[in-house]
Amino acid sequence: MNGAHSLMNTLVANGVDVCFANPGTSEMHFVAALDDTDGMRCVLGQFEGTVTGAADGYARMSGKPAVTLLHLGPGMANGLSNLHNALRAKSPIVNVIGDHATYHRHLDAPLTSDIEGAARPFSHWVRTTPDANSVATDTTAAIRESWRRPGRIASLILPADAAWNDVTTEATGELAGSPDASPADEQAITATAAALSAGQSTALILGPGATLEGPLQAAGRIAAATGARLLAPTMTSRITRGAGRVPVERIPYSPEPATKFLEQFDTLILVGAKAPVSFFAYPGKPSVLYHRDTRVIELAREDQDLTLALESLVAELGAENATVRTSDLVLPQVPNGAMSIDKLGALIGALLPEDAIVVDESITSGRALVPETESVRPHDWLVGSGGSIGYAMPCGVGAAVACPDRKVIVLESDGSAMYQPQALWTAARENLNMLVLIFANQKYGILHHEMHNVGVPEFGAKARALLDLDNPAIDFVGLAKSLGVPATAASTMDELAAQMRAGLATEGPALIEVRL
Amino acid sequence: MNGAHSLMNTLVANGVDVCFANPGTSEMHFVAALDDTDGMRCVLGQFEGTVTGAADGYARMSGKPAVTLLHLGPGMANGLSNLHNALRAKSPIVNVIGDHATYHRHLDAPLTSDIEGAARPFSHWVRTTPDANSVATDTTAAIRESWRRPGRIASLILPADAAWNDVTTEATGELAGSPDASPADEQAITATAAALSAGQSTALILGPGATLEGPLQAAGRIAAATGARLLAPTMTSRITRGAGRVPVERIPYSPEPATKFLEQFDTLILVGAKAPVSFFAYPGKPSVLYHRDTRVIELAREDQDLTLALESLVAELGAENATVRTSDLVLPQVPNGAMSIDKLGALIGALLPEDAIVVDESITSGRALVPETESVRPHDWLVGSGGSIGYAMPCGVGAAVACPDRKVIVLESDGSAMYQPQALWTAARENLNMLVLIFANQKYGILHHEMHNVGVPEFGAKARALLDLDNPAIDFVGLAKSLGVPATAASTMDELAAQMRAGLATEGPALIEVRL
Repeated sequence: MNGAHSLMNTLVANGVDVCFANPGTSEMHFVAALDDTDGMRCVLGQFEGTVTGAADGYARMSGKPAVTLLHLGPGMANGLSNLHNALRAKSPIVNVIGDHATYHRHLDAPLTSDIEGAARPFSHWVRTTPDANSVATDTTAAIRESWRRPGRIASLILPADAAWNDVTTEATGELAGSPDASPADEQAITATAAALSAGQSTALILGPGATLEGPLQAAGRIAAATGARLLAPTMTSRITRGAGRVPVERIPYSPEPATKFLEQFDTLILVGAKAPVSFFAYPGKPSVLYHRDTRVIELAREDQDLTLALESLVAELGAENATVRTSDLVLPQVPNGAMSIDKLGALIGALLPEDAIVVDESITSGRALVPETESVRPHDWLVGSGGSIGYAMPCGVGAAVACPDRKVIVLESDGSAMYQPQALWTAARENLNMLVLIFANQKYGILHHEMHNVGVPEFGAKARALLDLDNPAIDFVGLAKSLGVPATAASTMDELAAQMRAGLATEGPALIEVRL
Repeated sequence: MNGAHSLMNTLVANGVDVCFANPGTSEMHFVAALDDTDGMRCVLGQFEGTVTGAADGYARMSGKPAVTLLHLGPGMANGLSNLHNALRAKSPIVNVIGDHATYHRHLDAPLTSDIEGAARPFSHWVRTTPDANSVATDTTAAIRESWRRPGRIASLILPADAAWNDVTTEATGELAGSPDASPADEQAITATAAALSAGQSTALILGPGATLEGPLQAAGRIAAATGARLLAPTMTSRITRGAGRVPVERIPYSPEPATKFLEQFDTLILVGAKAPVSFFAYPGKPSVLYHRDTRVIELAREDQDLTLALESLVAELGAENATVRTSDLVLPQVPNGAMSIDKLGALIGALLPEDAIVVDESITSGRALVPETESVRPHDWLVGSGGSIGYAMPCGVGAAVACPDRKVIVLESDGSAMYQPQALWTAARENLNMLVLIFANQKYGILHHEMHNVGVPEFGAKARALLDLDNPAIDFVGLAKSLGVPATAASTMDELAAQMRAGLATEGPALIEVRL
């Protein structure tokens, strides 16, 4: 058994059985070891951003880490922006990054770089394995780190000789275990219960993992018993919502509406979440979104068990039998006529199938989608937690791999789509159950807004040339087809409805260019 | 004047007048300042790898830095792999990376990351500007650093408030200057001259910048006077070659032929180059490519003036009047009939127009292209110095921006093309004079070879699934057209010849999918 086999065996023994990969020469032994390893599914991406973004989507939907296989420093670098999103989404991921053989590194061959240095800003944990005998132990450590609450990025660098050399000492075979469930502090629970009873207008802000169905039930009991509102940060990685689920309000993105929205609460209770700050700073506007007189209380830190914390709070409040309010099923009418952003929410809401997974990077085209889909068929809603553009199609790939029986619907803006179009090829190759809507307004719409927000209401031709994408206009139908994904274009609501129905009825990927 | 204007003014005053950009919210003031700045050309990329790769190509062909405009840590991360190539190519580049306002950073908003940490492994110099008043000085420092021989990556991080705040103290207006010309050591010149006279079989290995026409003339005199051979590392960023130029032999890529090739020399003279090592390590094979008895002498370090060093050596040898051997013009016959990799060199060589710029990432499809184009019309030949895949189309974009009167011919493999297809859109948008050939063999051909090289001659279906790209096959004609680039496909040599002639006759971009 060589180090590469030791890696694969350790991963599979710990239930890490999906590998998103873009390998190179230094990873050839890992590729060879795949042949000899049962139970590992390997998914190829033709760009590393697809690989890491897919691992993020997989983790969000399965709750467990996938492994990525990346090629030295520059290969990993191509995956860093989606690792940033995963890190902010609190997604567990184990990265395996090949490196030169240990004895080759000092020669500074062209592909040599400081892999540890580059990995560190986008990882919670980085280690370079010294030799084949250490692979099992270090892989177990990486998996264990990725499991640490609320989910962490572990980057393991494996030199080529650690892969190809034989393992000469028995690996321990110890398992990494699963996430520990450290409870919230007693004091925090008592203090929060007291605040909920005292506050006139109170809201719980639900952090990563607390917006899934189980913890939302507990949160719903607290809301029912105390009148507290349930909020989620704008960039929450996954919210389980729709009919039959406990509704959560999303804090608005832009500073003015967010400030106005939060102003109504005299008490904010943090459940593994951070107190709200604006996404960017703007000249002369505050960065902190809540009023200085607002009382902020932490029920639980993000590394504690948020479900347990909420359930303990329910017990403390004696709210076990409170009647939880859930969303009714109210489907909007399917809109028709001319294409309009204002009608997209109703259309998507009306057609969304039961248990759909929505991956939302619709940016300016999708501002109204979230409120308008509150009462539709139950689904999960994912957004790009780190704000790095280009996450949605890769994330959709990973979600589809994790949940083959559910329909993934990627809501993508045209500017964002161009960061990681390679994900479409993987969707075609794996015949993933994924419908992509491209909202094509032929500009970086968000940046038009942002020019105004930063105090530049008027701008000229040179600035405009950096914000508009209409020269040339991109043919997303042609792009998708070139990568193996069937595609159509819709210019009216009726066309879009018909094409969405067709796409939803298809097993496998499809793309619709929504011409706005 | 705000900090953003100060940046633009300082860049233009120092002759840095091309900006490759993919901006975001934190860079909006820079975008606004562009409107008010004469003399700055701004080129938009829809992915940051296009931006940094274009800056590399621009630097290789113009000899001076372009500025890149990148969006915080994750935006910069998307450009790091092509920065790695630029770093290894010794291309001067000034990166401007926007960051959150200084007072916003501690709030850890979603897009916050350790930008300095991520930039450092792929930069020679990193600085964060503290305020608007420091922008001019820090920009000048960045330009000066980029100019340091042989060409360096300077990364300047500019917080949003340093851009939007007014400059309240007069900027110095000091210019960055141009690269200093530190001469080689006298002793090294004398020792090299002695070695050249004593050695039985000697070769000069020419480092970055020493393979352009001027230094090659001097190297040619040395070769003529002493019988020394002229070599270039496999991954040389730019070689000026063809009829009328001094021929240079490229050291083979693979360890066996490289070792065999270098075995014939008892003395290797390094001219700003490193002693040859293999690109990767392979089990049981040596990493150092020259024999342990070979004498290795350094004429000049890469930070010294290599042209001056070679000319000093000419003088020391009294070789001023030696007759330099240059390549004759010998055009191959245009091959016809069935498509074959073996005929590509003759076809490309026969059709290559005078002063063409060839950007080569043809990998396994292009192994014979270099030797077969030695005696064709004069041209420049660029390769991906850092070995990170996906450099060629972005690099071609930058070369075409630098040299609008020359034809850029990108020789691209299909696997490589998929890393940065976004570059095609920029080529269309800027109507760049660029012909792209995609060698479509529908696999990572190099990795098939490398499986053998690392000792895995046989491999199964799961491994093969990570190395083959035929499921689905990518339609590069459709892909290019979707991004605004006219495209055709060639299945025979005759079709390819006709399509190449048409593409070469076109002003603007074109792409040919070469079906192998």
